[in-house]
Amino acid sequence: MNFRSRLFFTDTFPLNEVDPNKDLLIIDGVVAKAFPALETKFKYVHPVTAGENLKDLANFAQHAELILQAWPFNRKSTIVACGGGSVGDFAGFMASVLKRGVRFYQCPSTWLSAIDSAHGGKTALNVSQIKNQVGTFYPAEKIFLVRELLFSQPQERIRDAMGELLKIGLIQSPTFLMDLAKSGAVSAEYLWRHLPHAIDAKYKILLEDPYETGVIRKILNLGHTLGHVLEASRGRPHGESIIQGLFFAVRWSAHRKLLPANELAMIEQTFTGLGLSCWLDEKWFQPLQKTTVEALLSQDKKMGAGDKIDFVFLKNIGRAVVGPMSVEEITTEAQRQGWVARE
Amino acid sequence: MNFRSRLFFTDTFPLNEVDPNKDLLIIDGVVAKAFPALETKFKYVHPVTAGENLKDLANFAQHAELILQAWPFNRKSTIVACGGGSVGDFAGFMASVLKRGVRFYQCPSTWLSAIDSAHGGKTALNVSQIKNQVGTFYPAEKIFLVRELLFSQPQERIRDAMGELLKIGLIQSPTFLMDLAKSGAVSAEYLWRHLPHAIDAKYKILLEDPYETGVIRKILNLGHTLGHVLEASRGRPHGESIIQGLFFAVRWSAHRKLLPANELAMIEQTFTGLGLSCWLDEKWFQPLQKTTVEALLSQDKKMGAGDKIDFVFLKNIGRAVVGPMSVEEITTEAQRQGWVARE
Repeated sequence: MNFRSRLFFTDTFPLNEVDPNKDLLIIDGVVAKAFPALETKFKYVHPVTAGENLKDLANFAQHAELILQAWPFNRKSTIVACGGGSVGDFAGFMASVLKRGVRFYQCPSTWLSAIDSAHGGKTALNVSQIKNQVGTFYPAEKIFLVRELLFSQPQERIRDAMGELLKIGLIQSPTFLMDLAKSGAVSAEYLWRHLPHAIDAKYKILLEDPYETGVIRKILNLGHTLGHVLEASRGRPHGESIIQGLFFAVRWSAHRKLLPANELAMIEQTFTGLGLSCWLDEKWFQPLQKTTVEALLSQDKKMGAGDKIDFVFLKNIGRAVVGPMSVEEITTEAQRQGWVARE
Repeated sequence: MNFRSRLFFTDTFPLNEVDPNKDLLIIDGVVAKAFPALETKFKYVHPVTAGENLKDLANFAQHAELILQAWPFNRKSTIVACGGGSVGDFAGFMASVLKRGVRFYQCPSTWLSAIDSAHGGKTALNVSQIKNQVGTFYPAEKIFLVRELLFSQPQERIRDAMGELLKIGLIQSPTFLMDLAKSGAVSAEYLWRHLPHAIDAKYKILLEDPYETGVIRKILNLGHTLGHVLEASRGRPHGESIIQGLFFAVRWSAHRKLLPANELAMIEQTFTGLGLSCWLDEKWFQPLQKTTVEALLSQDKKMGAGDKIDFVFLKNIGRAVVGPMSVEEITTEAQRQGWVARE
């Protein structure tokens, strides 16, 4: 399987790269409404509502049935997904299993999916609310990064995307992080400018271990362990939760003397300079319950090896390392940092 | 992916090749009842009822939920499937998508699956009664051919298996077909003796094109086009339907002057010698409706390229070729042979 998707950076949707008379367009209803012309170009359209419901395995059979009834296809046919992370996860899984795999193109409509989830071939559905328990490795053949689509998103989505962008900066190179820090106010233009480099950095890492059999690809989870805890327990957006998870990871890395103090200072300065602060200093901060954190971490544990969680630390800016940590060790650190109330 | 599974021919279930404390056993309830000791050896068991219901995509989410609740696993965990074709199709698909793929061993309990469906990595589920619309390529790492299990099947299952065995004989070599013809009455011993060679012949073909992107692997469909029509329209067992489909295919091949007349005669003699006759000469024969045949063939058409069906002909014993045929051409031949009533 070819994990390096062909990338197309374009101003408008590249209709010449698809076959609107044969391909099936799976599109987020919100995007379809914002760009009504797009849907009308395609003969076969399967509109969906983005979100966790779409990713519920219990609803998958019904989608497959509708698609089978409406779309005449064979294994050489193509599904074109247009939407954010959940639409890509759903459509990618659908493409990977219909007749044991049809062709798959993706057009991410959110910054978060354009930077991160559209790349790397991971598809995923949820099983009775446990996230991403079912899926396949199925990279898109082509990925369309469409300026018009991405720029149409509301301002808060830009902040959402910063978590993944900074994560890439932290694990990839000091130069890239400096670039991010220097290039001024966070805006759509800002994200568009850094998009090619961020995507390229992600490919560099994932191509070393596309099927995630070792730990290399795991470093892309920097900030995600506590990020997920915050996302699940407080319902904060994914991107913002990852930003907070990054604060946690770099502070722990420094506390364990893995990350030099001056690099931690530089990282925190970068974050602050971009208007991103740690939630401990925010109005909405309220310590998490120890039991909640333990329960969520234990769920996460299933993904790792044995009784430990593969926690991602930063050794230097540009160099992440994976260390297996117990739920107890992580919870203790969360208490030390003040995320969790001390007993 | 490694499409050549490791084969184990053993007298009893090879418990030393699994980890009964960690692996999940997905087992056909009928087999579990016949071999109660097997189930008790495993800590985690998911019993299923074989058949098309098990293969219904609409029921898949519920199975996944039950498995997730009961079985603590990660990507290095193993699913062991024990049952016939439907159990293998279901369990293989489950193994291929749980956490994007866990390890998979298979222990076919029917002759049909032992000869054919367990090998080659095709998993499949049905979507609203349309067969095998969803699936993955996911070869089993190990396949256990267990004498005790296979020999426990009723006599009629032996006849079932003959279709696939003769198919392999026809497409593989005159020598193998002669061996089949010579070795006397069809019995469990007969099948057990020819099993290694038949499996080996299947691997030889499928390894040339494991993902079935070309036509080579399609020759394994010899006899299946009209076989499926008979199976679907008259509810006859798969194996018997394939035998009839083989009669149809070789007679058409000879009529088109692809297959020499003397080879056709030898094939028919072999079949008769093994007690297998064409259904045209059987008491239960009754011509099929033209419209039914056309409808079933049109469904099949979706699998092929464009408007044609990839029909498998025999050029010589040991040499099959694929020819794209229209629904009309196949129906006309079915009328000529007497399968379908002339108008």
